[in-house]
Amino acid sequence: MQRYKCVISYDGSGFSGYQVQPNKRTVQSELEAMLAKMHKGASIKVIGSGRTDAGVHAKGQVIHFDSPLPIPEQKWEVALNSMLPEDISVLSVKKVDPSFHARFDAVGKEYRYVLHLSPIRDPFQRNYASRYPYPLHLDAIREASKFFLGTHDFTSFCSAKTEVEDKIRTIETIDFINVGDLLTIRFVGNGFLYNMVRILVGTLLAVGSGDFSPEDIPVIIEKKDRRFAGKTAPPQGLYLWKVFY
Amino acid sequence: MQRYKCVISYDGSGFSGYQVQPNKRTVQSELEAMLAKMHKGASIKVIGSGRTDAGVHAKGQVIHFDSPLPIPEQKWEVALNSMLPEDISVLSVKKVDPSFHARFDAVGKEYRYVLHLSPIRDPFQRNYASRYPYPLHLDAIREASKFFLGTHDFTSFCSAKTEVEDKIRTIETIDFINVGDLLTIRFVGNGFLYNMVRILVGTLLAVGSGDFSPEDIPVIIEKKDRRFAGKTAPPQGLYLWKVFY
Repeated sequence: MQRYKCVISYDGSGFSGYQVQPNKRTVQSELEAMLAKMHKGASIKVIGSGRTDAGVHAKGQVIHFDSPLPIPEQKWEVALNSMLPEDISVLSVKKVDPSFHARFDAVGKEYRYVLHLSPIRDPFQRNYASRYPYPLHLDAIREASKFFLGTHDFTSFCSAKTEVEDKIRTIETIDFINVGDLLTIRFVGNGFLYNMVRILVGTLLAVGSGDFSPEDIPVIIEKKDRRFAGKTAPPQGLYLWKVFY
Repeated sequence: MQRYKCVISYDGSGFSGYQVQPNKRTVQSELEAMLAKMHKGASIKVIGSGRTDAGVHAKGQVIHFDSPLPIPEQKWEVALNSMLPEDISVLSVKKVDPSFHARFDAVGKEYRYVLHLSPIRDPFQRNYASRYPYPLHLDAIREASKFFLGTHDFTSFCSAKTEVEDKIRTIETIDFINVGDLLTIRFVGNGFLYNMVRILVGTLLAVGSGDFSPEDIPVIIEKKDRRFAGKTAPPQGLYLWKVFY
């Protein structure tokens, strides 16, 4: 048995998220179906660095799996891509130690959220950015974002359905890339709770529209109650960009 | 009755082309179904500047239709977009003289063809660019493209199915925009025959790969026979960018 670490990219539009669900098309189930074919029906479990929701994209999701097949490292990429559907792509494959674990060994993640700031619909952005048609106070958003940096209890910024108990996370970087009518918000941290990036974005948009002021952020953090933060921004603007080990 | 000229954009991925076909989802049939709803079931004919094939996109297709509804010009855009599916967008609506005709009055068109020059599949480009994974001689392509400029009989560069008799067209501009691993080829001319841009691109790729030399182009033009030109490049890289009146 050899363990392999793969970096993969997928267009989330056609998937009911990353994780296996009965009777749904998911990224994990496509990967496992493909590996089962390669291994003559033997079931090969795929472990991802974490889930992504329906409609959420990945530019650098990381997975691992074990295989007994005597395929040289450099041939795996071509072999896997030749059997995968067009909306998933394997960007790299590396042999790793059997102790490597895509989820438990991750020490950080980068997510990006893309906003399409336009009153006019663009058919080419509908699945790849979240459209925001109203004026936005970008300076207020930048100011508000600074309150999220550092180590906080992010209970106010995760889905009430979150099962993990420890809701303390550290955000290292939040920055902004503005190209034309696309505004990308980049989040780098040691980990993100369920729906956390989308709720952070929804809260920043509430600051940008004037519903909240930047100084409301520390108060919302302190409340430790999801009801005080902004809306959950839609999934199609979100990209799991990179996983750090 | 008032005639309206609209500029529309669509993501061709989900359509069996522009023109109405029985039991297929097409751009024209979606537009006409939407207008029928607005007009309480009355059938409103939509005329486009020309067809686009299945999978081909439009950033600036032009259509016209007639309506008796007393809607002010500036309200049409919002009204139409609110009823259209997300993969079609109306960018502008203008009242025009009843003599205006989207097809017959067009004096020129701009098409763009996007190539994804990469050995690695990108799930986000699969419907929006045509991937070319081999080395390309860009200088040879540029040189070859010059032979297409001006007025020629383009019989060698259109589908054998083409019904129009006059195959003489004038190409004003062919240029190249290279950003990262995307190469966009821009074609501006007074009109393009069926499949003409895709066959021009397929022929330029044959030059770029070394199968043809630039000097073969005038010979292929002279042959007036489709079999001498290159392959028809796939539809998903093609965009009807602008129609000139």
